[in-house]
Amino acid sequence: MSFASRHIGPDTDEQTHMFKSIGYASLDALMDAAVPEVIRWRGSLNLPAAASEEEAIAELRAIAAGNTVATPMIGLGYYGTVTPAVIRRNVLENPAWYTAYTPYQPEISQGRLEALLNFQTMVTDLTGLATANASMLDEGTAVAEAMTLARRASKSKSQVYVVDADTLPQTLSVLRTRAEPLNIELALVDLTHAGLEGGDPLPEAFFGLHLQYPGASGAVRDHLSLIEAAHAAGALVTVAADLLALTLLRAPGEMGADIAAGTTQRFGVPLGFGGPHAGYLAVRSGLERSLPGRLVGVSKDADGAPAYRLALQTREQHIRREKATSNICTAQVLLAVMASMYAVYHGPDGLRAIARRTHDRAREIAAGLAAAGVTIEHAAFFDTVTARVPGRAAEVVAAAAAAGVDLRLVDEDRVSVAADETTTAANVSTVLAAFGAAPAPARDRVLPESLDRTTDFLTHPVFRTHHSETSMLRYLRQLSDRDYALDRGMIPLGSCTMKLNATTEMEPVSWPEFADIHPYAPASQTAGYEHLVAQLEGWLAEITGYDAVSVQPNAGSQGELAGLLAIRGYHRSRGDAHRDVCLIPSSAHGTNAASAVMAGMRVVVVACDDQGNVDLADLRAKIEKHAAQLAAIMVTYPSTHGVYETSIADLCALVHDAGGQVYVDGANLNALVGFAKPGRFGADVSHLNLHKTFCIPHGGGGPGVGPVAVRSHLAGFLPGDPLLAGDHHAVSAAAHGSAGILPISWAYLRMMGPDGLAQATAAAVLAANYVAARLRDHYPVLYAGNNGLVAHECILDLRPLTKATGVTVDDVAKRLIDYGFHAPTMSFPVAGTLMVEPTESEDLVELDRFCAAMIAIRAEIDRVASGAWPRDDNPLANAPHTAAAVSADVWEHAYPRSVAAYPSGVSPTAKYWPPVRRIDGAYGDRNLVCSCPSPEAFEEA
Amino acid sequence: MSFASRHIGPDTDEQTHMFKSIGYASLDALMDAAVPEVIRWRGSLNLPAAASEEEAIAELRAIAAGNTVATPMIGLGYYGTVTPAVIRRNVLENPAWYTAYTPYQPEISQGRLEALLNFQTMVTDLTGLATANASMLDEGTAVAEAMTLARRASKSKSQVYVVDADTLPQTLSVLRTRAEPLNIELALVDLTHAGLEGGDPLPEAFFGLHLQYPGASGAVRDHLSLIEAAHAAGALVTVAADLLALTLLRAPGEMGADIAAGTTQRFGVPLGFGGPHAGYLAVRSGLERSLPGRLVGVSKDADGAPAYRLALQTREQHIRREKATSNICTAQVLLAVMASMYAVYHGPDGLRAIARRTHDRAREIAAGLAAAGVTIEHAAFFDTVTARVPGRAAEVVAAAAAAGVDLRLVDEDRVSVAADETTTAANVSTVLAAFGAAPAPARDRVLPESLDRTTDFLTHPVFRTHHSETSMLRYLRQLSDRDYALDRGMIPLGSCTMKLNATTEMEPVSWPEFADIHPYAPASQTAGYEHLVAQLEGWLAEITGYDAVSVQPNAGSQGELAGLLAIRGYHRSRGDAHRDVCLIPSSAHGTNAASAVMAGMRVVVVACDDQGNVDLADLRAKIEKHAAQLAAIMVTYPSTHGVYETSIADLCALVHDAGGQVYVDGANLNALVGFAKPGRFGADVSHLNLHKTFCIPHGGGGPGVGPVAVRSHLAGFLPGDPLLAGDHHAVSAAAHGSAGILPISWAYLRMMGPDGLAQATAAAVLAANYVAARLRDHYPVLYAGNNGLVAHECILDLRPLTKATGVTVDDVAKRLIDYGFHAPTMSFPVAGTLMVEPTESEDLVELDRFCAAMIAIRAEIDRVASGAWPRDDNPLANAPHTAAAVSADVWEHAYPRSVAAYPSGVSPTAKYWPPVRRIDGAYGDRNLVCSCPSPEAFEEA
Repeated sequence: MSFASRHIGPDTDEQTHMFKSIGYASLDALMDAAVPEVIRWRGSLNLPAAASEEEAIAELRAIAAGNTVATPMIGLGYYGTVTPAVIRRNVLENPAWYTAYTPYQPEISQGRLEALLNFQTMVTDLTGLATANASMLDEGTAVAEAMTLARRASKSKSQVYVVDADTLPQTLSVLRTRAEPLNIELALVDLTHAGLEGGDPLPEAFFGLHLQYPGASGAVRDHLSLIEAAHAAGALVTVAADLLALTLLRAPGEMGADIAAGTTQRFGVPLGFGGPHAGYLAVRSGLERSLPGRLVGVSKDADGAPAYRLALQTREQHIRREKATSNICTAQVLLAVMASMYAVYHGPDGLRAIARRTHDRAREIAAGLAAAGVTIEHAAFFDTVTARVPGRAAEVVAAAAAAGVDLRLVDEDRVSVAADETTTAANVSTVLAAFGAAPAPARDRVLPESLDRTTDFLTHPVFRTHHSETSMLRYLRQLSDRDYALDRGMIPLGSCTMKLNATTEMEPVSWPEFADIHPYAPASQTAGYEHLVAQLEGWLAEITGYDAVSVQPNAGSQGELAGLLAIRGYHRSRGDAHRDVCLIPSSAHGTNAASAVMAGMRVVVVACDDQGNVDLADLRAKIEKHAAQLAAIMVTYPSTHGVYETSIADLCALVHDAGGQVYVDGANLNALVGFAKPGRFGADVSHLNLHKTFCIPHGGGGPGVGPVAVRSHLAGFLPGDPLLAGDHHAVSAAAHGSAGILPISWAYLRMMGPDGLAQATAAAVLAANYVAARLRDHYPVLYAGNNGLVAHECILDLRPLTKATGVTVDDVAKRLIDYGFHAPTMSFPVAGTLMVEPTESEDLVELDRFCAAMIAIRAEIDRVASGAWPRDDNPLANAPHTAAAVSADVWEHAYPRSVAAYPSGVSPTAKYWPPVRRIDGAYGDRNLVCSCPSPEAFEEA
Repeated sequence: MSFASRHIGPDTDEQTHMFKSIGYASLDALMDAAVPEVIRWRGSLNLPAAASEEEAIAELRAIAAGNTVATPMIGLGYYGTVTPAVIRRNVLENPAWYTAYTPYQPEISQGRLEALLNFQTMVTDLTGLATANASMLDEGTAVAEAMTLARRASKSKSQVYVVDADTLPQTLSVLRTRAEPLNIELALVDLTHAGLEGGDPLPEAFFGLHLQYPGASGAVRDHLSLIEAAHAAGALVTVAADLLALTLLRAPGEMGADIAAGTTQRFGVPLGFGGPHAGYLAVRSGLERSLPGRLVGVSKDADGAPAYRLALQTREQHIRREKATSNICTAQVLLAVMASMYAVYHGPDGLRAIARRTHDRAREIAAGLAAAGVTIEHAAFFDTVTARVPGRAAEVVAAAAAAGVDLRLVDEDRVSVAADETTTAANVSTVLAAFGAAPAPARDRVLPESLDRTTDFLTHPVFRTHHSETSMLRYLRQLSDRDYALDRGMIPLGSCTMKLNATTEMEPVSWPEFADIHPYAPASQTAGYEHLVAQLEGWLAEITGYDAVSVQPNAGSQGELAGLLAIRGYHRSRGDAHRDVCLIPSSAHGTNAASAVMAGMRVVVVACDDQGNVDLADLRAKIEKHAAQLAAIMVTYPSTHGVYETSIADLCALVHDAGGQVYVDGANLNALVGFAKPGRFGADVSHLNLHKTFCIPHGGGGPGVGPVAVRSHLAGFLPGDPLLAGDHHAVSAAAHGSAGILPISWAYLRMMGPDGLAQATAAAVLAANYVAARLRDHYPVLYAGNNGLVAHECILDLRPLTKATGVTVDDVAKRLIDYGFHAPTMSFPVAGTLMVEPTESEDLVELDRFCAAMIAIRAEIDRVASGAWPRDDNPLANAPHTAAAVSADVWEHAYPRSVAAYPSGVSPTAKYWPPVRRIDGAYGDRNLVCSCPSPEAFEEA
């Protein structure tokens, strides 16, 4: 069988049944009726014909062979690390973890929420700060978020952000990208003796001071007095800190820092040529409500038992829209889980031992160099030494590379060498030999006593329990068993495209030739990756009809920002710096508005008509009003209502005529591939979501990849390599962002081929229309396009039922858990509705099982309506039901246990039991706890 | 942390707590007290010092690089196959499947029992026979079992087994090994025209006729009249049939065959240089009660719901002992599951398509050869053609090998070429070019119409439902969720050593350089494997104190047979053919006796004393009685009672003095490694269980590996390569048996090192004594050695409680499920007891959780004793409790639901729910159903 027939759920017979049941003679006829002619592209994608799974793997092996796995001693925030095999196999390679969605339905996400709470606890313990989120994208963007958070929180009127000259160069690059549109001025200062006699002066006023700890050079500096000075100046202090170093070094929070940011890559997360890794961001007490990103907190369920859920969600961009101060949304949950499990597995003693070993290797290198008369630039270091070898730097780096070790060429006179947990004595010898040096006894102490870590960390039992592989394995299994992911059943989340993440797509991610490549490895070692990226970018351009693509953005949000920055750059290049108005329809994803603000634009909202389409009259009015300032419009296509709007061409023309650019959010590209190309029907730029249409798994809330695609006039404004100088901006710390997972999308495209991709699109549209047709008599289906058809998703309106019975979308969503489903998207884009996107991967059995559940739930609602069940005591109001609840000794509900536990169609042998009952989110927000609760908290409940 | 500290559950603090709590000042002191001086070996094993996990993987990668992955067109029963990635990742690489035990506790094994029932259904459907077991070890041993089954079932008095001259050579080799001790005479006959004019004559009388279908040469022959003739002669007909060919060819059962045997390797199971693969054995109606091996059947649970369990267990060797006719016990469950899932994933149409494609490639090869004037030996073939190239065969094979394709060198004039599902058009061209031929149009039909398959197969819905990867993934998850394996909790099975199977040990099994090597690949391509095997055999010799080791036996049972055959060979070589008495203590594993019978020995049972030790007086008496005929004694050490017997040296001396050999069953080697060496304390031969002491996972009932280890005088009698001529015997179809999983044990030894191995032994003994000490007040602990200490396991006596209360070991075992545990070994070696082996991998938390459960259960028994709970209605009698049972609308038991569901210490968030209630095994045996029941059967229940 072809891969396409494995990827697409319904087989030919099932598809025939489906299109016939909704009144079409063929799938072609359905697509002709659904897709408006104005956007329809008729042709065959110019992509290689489908390869079989074995052929694709063979090609990928050949590509992987183009990369060279060297010993990575380049440093700069990326280190060799040992991924414990038990974590690789049972997290990274386990569909129970990687096919899960973001934990917005907390009752069925307790496992990953606990893992993320461990992550937050790990970060807060190590940084000495009060609250950490879970998680950020990489260190570069995490520091950028720290900067904007400091700007918001500081009372200083200054726009100056003082930045440690010893900051990682890629972080500086991302900071420049982020600061410029927000009118933040970066002041790069050598902080070694800053403010002291002979040292560099500090600016008169500044809102923030940023320290790199240890510095990019490896230097460890005592900045305690500088921190005091910054606070005295009304500035906040942000620190980019290495978590492994913090096991030995005084924590930022203990030095008075307000915010810490960084990466957790070296906690067992493969290098992957730059990602995906989990960044972190932690704040002192008082700043938690300003923290961007996802925050896990402890609350309680309907029985009063402790339960986890996302806390303080009203901070987030999808709620705050243009008032948001960050657009971060998908983060790097899968990698955060891995990093947290690394800490769980090693525990505090293990981490300390790893840090000491790493430090010892660095000391040995320094000692050998010193003995050979090579100058080390800094006396105090943790894992990295920068050596001065005037005129010889390239030669030293080449000699080491020839022996299989990559060093960092700082400039022609300096080389830096970073040790890590994988560094062996042999590596030390190799490095020394490259310098013409030899091993020598190391000095006892190189770190200042004032920076000794004196406080304990990771004191919670979870970090002291699972140190045997058996115990670790069981912990991972227990957590994953609490969760509902694609490996259990359908996750019909509108706009999220939860489709198959095929194993063949996933397997190469673990290969050393992809996993173990440093992002700044020399080009001679990364030809495989460059080939893969170029091919993938070319295929995505062909699919979308654009001229150029960059895979650098490591999340959809970053793709949006990159796209808007391209528009900004374009206008500026034409002297149109005043064009700063971004039109956004009221139905847009909340992230759109947040991204526009971050790109220095003003958001003007355009109304939608009662069909959910952009109101062209209002659009004309807004364009007229803002014509001179018009920068862009951001629309989603098909619309966020799941409809192929027919006015899209007119919309594009109107905006273009006024000098604006058209941004089409690619979130719904799954309804277009092979049938329409945004770059052809009028758009100038899109970001894509590889974790939606192109099969990168959601990982429980990341990683995502959000390539940006543009027409040729914007190609010069795509993101560039953060380590190269130039005019370009960088939105991620690595040239190709989360390169390590690009083989997934590559494999998907290679195995589907042009025909398979079009078949998938048609099957997705067919499934949505089939579900809409089956459920229409039970729930009104809101919005439709041509011929009453939806695109790839449909909106079920619960509002009349809610009004009549008090049963809410929440009740239905939670009751679906009892039936063995993840809920559809709730109250987006329309409050009080459910948006269902079945995708092409669900077969007819599963689609019918879902429809049957929804119909059975409608019958349950009717029983509430009829008064047979009280409004406050019925299976909907009390959903979800845990096994403990339905087997309680006392049962005083108005409905029997069997209805609670095994409603219509649920088989006892395939029953999924949620581990907690409905969670009271507000309670947790009032009583904020964002790190691991004591075991007693569970015992009491 | 060292690997040893990951492998061993209790850390230093926990171990200290444990030895102190049982009254010892140190672990050394405990071991000194436990291990008798008479066997104690004091030294450090001469093994390489422990490597870290990363170092071991690096070494294994270097070893793997010594193997060459070629296109395997050698055939001979081993074919290239595509393991569907979804099956590899979610079965072969999933601890939920591979760490499971044999499904003797069926209530917590429903997932793999269903998979095995699918396997049986697949085999019966394809072979056209009534009943198939699950499963056999490989084709060679499966045919050997078919032979002995035919001998048992035939009414003929003849000892002659007529064997198709076109039988696979390795099968012939195994048949010779197996026939000789049983006085079966093999008559090799060219069956092409056998019994017809001009053809070879058939013997006058014979009990069985064996056909290879298609033949080793590739020939497909119509043997219908021969089958009739055999039946007329009172013989049974056995057929070694290729399952893929059977999708196109008339099934053996439809031709009148009585028994079919073979392998399922090409159903997605990696080649692995010979294994592990699952063999199969199927019989016509009427023979099912003579079938050896494990047979899954459908029965019902306490609620009348359909439920699976092992059927007709009284057939098996552990029950029948010396009356057994086969010693097969551990089979190849993990691989049988993979093969069955391959059939589920492809379905009948998919399998037919694969067969047709394979056949087409073979036809293309034949056509090209014919066009070039090369003679093909047989007109009718499925996938293999044998070409006559007088004098050129080696040259052709070399030319193909140089182009990356391995062919079979039959002799100097003949080459055979086998196609499979991986064969590409390019491969066909390469093969033809090696012959100096070129592609040519193929003939339409090469198979005789009389052998066309006209019947349907795999008609059960399970083979027609899961064809999308999403559906397949969910099916695998659902099945595994029903089961309890080591990834959920402790499996304290005495004698089975269910310890950690570390991920680092497992990962290399999937590498193509180990997985994709044909067992008969030329030596130039398998240097890596040879190196690994030699190293592993050397290490095992060092550990056991023997002089030579063979890893060929692919299960413990085969190791026993190989060891006894070595003894037999030794005696015969000295003219002592009359030495045929094998002494076996009454407490022995049942397999021992069965193996002895298969090795042509007579079993004489030696009594045990009331301490469970061999009764030396009885031993002396038996030796005296059988002195002249004494061949061997088989004992287990430590004894099957889990005790270090002090009389072992005396026992060895007595047997040796009488001219016998001492066989020490290595089942309990986990209590000896680093502390005693059987080869040093008096034994001549042992088999080891790599799936016990040496960490190969149990896989739900296999694979196992059972190397045989001998002292130098027996080294010449070890098994030899089945494809090489000579005096040696072969017990497996491949020289190194299940070579594909040897990297697991290699990695274990490499990472533990001499110190780690000794620490593991001590930790295992400590854990057993800790559990014994904690439970002694609640259950009498039977048997002890020096200082009242047990070895690595302890026996809890339930008999007094059973007598007093009616609560049986079964009740306790099933109640342990409610507490979240797999039961200990039940009623072995003593009826009415539980034998607990915690192993070194369980940490103190888990050991204490188990002890607490056992103590809580004792309190429950007391409530029955006191009359608080009726004898026929208490949580023990009704265990295990399903979620459906405890949430039923009606509850009329004498104890509350909460006691049933969440007894003391069970957390609702970590609760394991069995999918069925207690299973009525006898019902299923009375109403035998051994293939998939109809879906309606479940609906009705």
